[in-house]
Amino acid sequence: MAGSTFGSMFRITTWGESHGDGIGVVIDGCPAGLSVNEEMIQAFLDRRRPGQTRYTTQRKEADTVKILSGIFEGKTTGTPISMAVMNTNQISRDYSEIAGYYRPGHADYTYDTKYGFRDYRGGGRSSGRETIGRVAAGAIASAILKELGITVCAYTKSIGGISIDYSKCSKENIFQSPFYMPDLEASAATEVLMQEKIKELNSVGGIIECIISGVPAGIGEPVFEKLDANLGKAILSIGAIKGIEFGSGFLAAEKTGIENNDPYFYSETGKVEKRSNNAGGILGGISDGSEIVFRAAVKPTASIAMNQKTINKEGENIDIRIKGRHDPVIVPRAVVVVESMAAVTLLDMLFQSMTSRMDSIVKFFRKE
Amino acid sequence: MAGSTFGSMFRITTWGESHGDGIGVVIDGCPAGLSVNEEMIQAFLDRRRPGQTRYTTQRKEADTVKILSGIFEGKTTGTPISMAVMNTNQISRDYSEIAGYYRPGHADYTYDTKYGFRDYRGGGRSSGRETIGRVAAGAIASAILKELGITVCAYTKSIGGISIDYSKCSKENIFQSPFYMPDLEASAATEVLMQEKIKELNSVGGIIECIISGVPAGIGEPVFEKLDANLGKAILSIGAIKGIEFGSGFLAAEKTGIENNDPYFYSETGKVEKRSNNAGGILGGISDGSEIVFRAAVKPTASIAMNQKTINKEGENIDIRIKGRHDPVIVPRAVVVVESMAAVTLLDMLFQSMTSRMDSIVKFFRKE
Amino acid sequence: MAGSTFGSMFRITTWGESHGDGIGVVIDGCPAGLSVNEEMIQAFLDRRRPGQTRYTTQRKEADTVKILSGIFEGKTTGTPISMAVMNTNQISRDYSEIAGYYRPGHADYTYDTKYGFRDYRGGGRSSGRETIGRVAAGAIASAILKELGITVCAYTKSIGGISIDYSKCSKENIFQSPFYMPDLEASAATEVLMQEKIKELNSVGGIIECIISGVPAGIGEPVFEKLDANLGKAILSIGAIKGIEFGSGFLAAEKTGIENNDPYFYSETGKVEKRSNNAGGILGGISDGSEIVFRAAVKPTASIAMNQKTINKEGENIDIRIKGRHDPVIVPRAVVVVESMAAVTLLDMLFQSMTSRMDSIVKFFRKE
Amino acid sequence: MAGSTFGSMFRITTWGESHGDGIGVVIDGCPAGLSVNEEMIQAFLDRRRPGQTRYTTQRKEADTVKILSGIFEGKTTGTPISMAVMNTNQISRDYSEIAGYYRPGHADYTYDTKYGFRDYRGGGRSSGRETIGRVAAGAIASAILKELGITVCAYTKSIGGISIDYSKCSKENIFQSPFYMPDLEASAATEVLMQEKIKELNSVGGIIECIISGVPAGIGEPVFEKLDANLGKAILSIGAIKGIEFGSGFLAAEKTGIENNDPYFYSETGKVEKRSNNAGGILGGISDGSEIVFRAAVKPTASIAMNQKTINKEGENIDIRIKGRHDPVIVPRAVVVVESMAAVTLLDMLFQSMTSRMDSIVKFFRKE
Repeated sequence: MAGSTFGSMFRITTWGESHGDGIGVVIDGCPAGLSVNEEMIQAFLDRRRPGQTRYTTQRKEADTVKILSGIFEGKTTGTPISMAVMNTNQISRDYSEIAGYYRPGHADYTYDTKYGFRDYRGGGRSSGRETIGRVAAGAIASAILKELGITVCAYTKSIGGISIDYSKCSKENIFQSPFYMPDLEASAATEVLMQEKIKELNSVGGIIECIISGVPAGIGEPVFEKLDANLGKAILSIGAIKGIEFGSGFLAAEKTGIENNDPYFYSETGKVEKRSNNAGGILGGISDGSEIVFRAAVKPTASIAMNQKTINKEGENIDIRIKGRHDPVIVPRAVVVVESMAAVTLLDMLFQSMTSRMDSIVKFFRKE
Repeated sequence: MAGSTFGSMFRITTWGESHGDGIGVVIDGCPAGLSVNEEMIQAFLDRRRPGQTRYTTQRKEADTVKILSGIFEGKTTGTPISMAVMNTNQISRDYSEIAGYYRPGHADYTYDTKYGFRDYRGGGRSSGRETIGRVAAGAIASAILKELGITVCAYTKSIGGISIDYSKCSKENIFQSPFYMPDLEASAATEVLMQEKIKELNSVGGIIECIISGVPAGIGEPVFEKLDANLGKAILSIGAIKGIEFGSGFLAAEKTGIENNDPYFYSETGKVEKRSNNAGGILGGISDGSEIVFRAAVKPTASIAMNQKTINKEGENIDIRIKGRHDPVIVPRAVVVVESMAAVTLLDMLFQSMTSRMDSIVKFFRKE
Repeated sequence: MAGSTFGSMFRITTWGESHGDGIGVVIDGCPAGLSVNEEMIQAFLDRRRPGQTRYTTQRKEADTVKILSGIFEGKTTGTPISMAVMNTNQISRDYSEIAGYYRPGHADYTYDTKYGFRDYRGGGRSSGRETIGRVAAGAIASAILKELGITVCAYTKSIGGISIDYSKCSKENIFQSPFYMPDLEASAATEVLMQEKIKELNSVGGIIECIISGVPAGIGEPVFEKLDANLGKAILSIGAIKGIEFGSGFLAAEKTGIENNDPYFYSETGKVEKRSNNAGGILGGISDGSEIVFRAAVKPTASIAMNQKTINKEGENIDIRIKGRHDPVIVPRAVVVVESMAAVTLLDMLFQSMTSRMDSIVKFFRKE
Repeated sequence: MAGSTFGSMFRITTWGESHGDGIGVVIDGCPAGLSVNEEMIQAFLDRRRPGQTRYTTQRKEADTVKILSGIFEGKTTGTPISMAVMNTNQISRDYSEIAGYYRPGHADYTYDTKYGFRDYRGGGRSSGRETIGRVAAGAIASAILKELGITVCAYTKSIGGISIDYSKCSKENIFQSPFYMPDLEASAATEVLMQEKIKELNSVGGIIECIISGVPAGIGEPVFEKLDANLGKAILSIGAIKGIEFGSGFLAAEKTGIENNDPYFYSETGKVEKRSNNAGGILGGISDGSEIVFRAAVKPTASIAMNQKTINKEGENIDIRIKGRHDPVIVPRAVVVVESMAAVTLLDMLFQSMTSRMDSIVKFFRKE
């Protein structure tokens, strides 16, 4: 069944394979009147582009985006925004070897079982390149959120066990590290770790944290369309993500009620605030006006050059060594993907929340 | 916007408040010809019924289900199955106090902000009683899955830090513990812990694990409708769940590629198997034929009788002590809710997977 | 697959069979703060209740609605509104005869083929009683539309070839006729025709016209979610409706461009108006600010007592005479169903239109 | 809100404007293993291409389709199929005149009101060129249906009042007429009529009939997802369609029950057949195994060169003469669009019907 569309009111549909003609996205439901240009999309895409440091794959991919529809005289028209990145650097080497066996940790076997065969070139649709469409959409969602005073900010919380303590959202800090890890000491330690793993022909995983600021209280729909449930789906739909937690998350399981509840208080200006944020900014599936905080676990890159045991299609147990140019850690490149999916999801939920109250609706339509 | 419907081909819509006339669910998309009776629904509901042990709320709720449509001569007709549990034991005590302030850890403040006011009696729609509809639907989804050789099995993995090592799925074991914790030693230790917390007027959280056996490979839709993404949404839509992880989950973030990849091998009978299951049975969002394994973090019950700081609607910072009969831990009663949502989600994804291949479709329609 | 839910932001799910325990609807996405009571729902339901005149079935059905959730202190809470009409007058006569053959013009054969068997009592789910849920939902949608200055008004345009010329919307006029035919001369002629058809044990069809006033320009989404496309789906989903047309409709096929185009002009007050309304108030799928006008063709009642040829399940060609109490014409009772579905659809489209423009969205969220 | 996606299991998303970079479609939910190439898509597109006869617009548009994803080694992979037609012949003449006023019968005014401004070049998103994406998708849906023994066949039933009697489905006949009107005498009379209308600078409308053969009984979902309801939405979503009717359609309103009911009988081979098809092959929203028949009313082309009255944005009532190359009748070019939308809808409903019965589902998953 169709699975390449996400969202309800702000809806994205992605297409494309790693080694096909290109990768793209159609955004439907973008309001009219937003200023959009290719540069702002490209800036987002560049954050996931490979080949920037020695800790990401050495493939060179220009990944230049082109907007094909939905913009007129620099502004969105309210009609679908189609964007595409045509593939240019896909080396047409011999993939017949990879076609014949199932790489551990990859979707080779599951695609073959599901569909009867697969486009095995570079992972096909299950390639990380599929996220290009998500990020292009994330750039536009973020631009809309910015107009509403909302900022989405993701960064690397840990790699291979090296973890940082951080809870702000300064892109300046984040962009200083090749790992988007806004603690330069930890970032330097991670460089040492990565050099070791590269030498081993191995890979590592990590954790991405995301903080969303400026969200008004009241966003998210009970019962099944809770804000955290939808963010959860969005983030878990990114390949390699194996878990997500909000606020105190799994630690909440070990806490008591008095420890985990966040006491409310009125600030001096009369604003409702909380003394802690174990809830991660969401109560009953609805934003409470404080920062939304979640963390996602990223598994180590499945493609490693070390010797691995697996099977081929001929019914044999075999040993393989995966060739090619792969990321020893995908966490840094996944940061902007997490940020993009969070932005897309939040925007959709914001739109959904507009019909919660009769008084707001009457005011909206009786403008004059 | 509408948020009380879950699923696409097998779809459930729940309704009802804690202290309204009743709670119910409409199941749409249930295939015709399944034997269904009220006893099988009731058996599921009884697993979440309060008042069974001293470790759950002492409220007595009969929670007797009635099937109102969709069944004819003992079998489903393919039309909507409407089920309701009418409320009978809702004490009509004075709720004016609770109406005036916002309980920490509850959805009081977020509902008020979103909707302008709230049905404050017993939590209204955000009450745990809302899950009655989910569990009734879960009973039917589980019955269908059983016909397909699939078993969904949830149990308590930890409470207040007391954790067990378990990876089977024996309902017999599980039902022996008042906490649905299939390690009787740990269960006994938990009883001691709970008595302490009850005395403190405090509460604790825990972790629920769920194992799904018998799922064929090929279930789950790339890209956004991944099986894990949908299970994630389903489980995170349950109140009090703060995180979910699949397979090695958050531990994957600390592992290397060679540790986390699951090597394939052919069994002696020629079956494709894996030497480990860090993937939790899902690769690229699609089931790989091994057991699906996930864990969900449950926060401690927000309703505690200890003194807490909060605010009232009059703009004052106040101290409160929440009265009433509350669960000192909700993990045990949430076990069947997790199991139900997993069953509903998996069934929906199974149905969605039926159109993956032309050859299967041609065979389906060209039966004769 | 699930087919009993309609709408996206304002969403209704109906359940129930003609001779089951009851019939109901769950409305999800109703904004909070609307005054709702059972009387206003009942008033709508009474318009489709049988047994009121000799031209409708002589079955007595109280059809008393009960609201089960979603209302607190007389106002909607924003949570699902569950409403049910329990069946009381369903005569438990012997249906074994009808179970064995397929009535022409009914869904007996198609249900049996689709599901393998059917609830044959009184038509089961394909009974006209299914529309009770739609009408209950229509009452609430109409109440919301009223707050926005919008009126939906349906009436009988023709019965058995007797047609009226009418283009206002006066419920007073409409309710004076037992056929909801706001031309009392034509209504009287129809009485004569009906007496003849009743004597013949035959039935007749007719046309229902619907006028929607007060809709602002800009409602409806290009491309597939056009306002007329969604109204079309809604109306064609009512049993017995065989066609729908907007504005000049099928007559447009015989017109020239200069005849069919509606010239715009500025009224004296500077308002944009049109000199004709061949468009039926919709251009490019979007409302143009004038009245929305459509007509629906209703087939003659399929249940007739005349001798008919058909088949039984034993493989025989047989003759039948359908017993029971049936409407000689269903047009009058269908009027409120058409009105209800139009109201539900229009409201959903109004809600969908709220995110068309950045400036409106920014204003909505930056209220203070 | 998002409106450019159609379908549930077989889902199409279109994008693009008349004078933008191009027009395209993403098909999601196409099963794996179907042979697809650009030639078969192009053959469909050529049926709607302008400039073929003197009765269609004299614009030359190559409309060459390119498949960008979803095909590997000549077969569908189960992943999204992205197709695009890049715009090449869009004359960049001065559109400033058209930008300033509202053409009668067009969506200029409604788009401006909805979105605040519009891409006025050639109609933008409301242009007939938008249907290119629908037709490309229709080519693929038709190819799948063909594998299942189902044929969709549309043709011109009438133009400007010249109507034909036809109820077969011979593409050979249909393609002989420049109007796709499979009665060469009527087609010749239409040529005379068209020459007259072209001279007048006027345009005409017409009716398209569609016959679908080979559909098994049991397709279509009660209650809201009836087969006719979904076909109705699909066809009414095509610009310029003002009405749709099934089987006897609006004539049913003037018939009696005994005339309109279709008696069943067993054929000599024991097959269930009907003696007439007033139902148009659908009863209770579900296919009955006979031919599905519907007709759609197409309004006359709104763009005419005759003098017309309208308004400009400056608040003035003005006279206009629309320049450019326009179709004096759009019926012939709309035939393949109707056929395409019918194919897409039917396929989606076929897929939806696969979960109607437990026995079929069990058989599907327990293949071995």
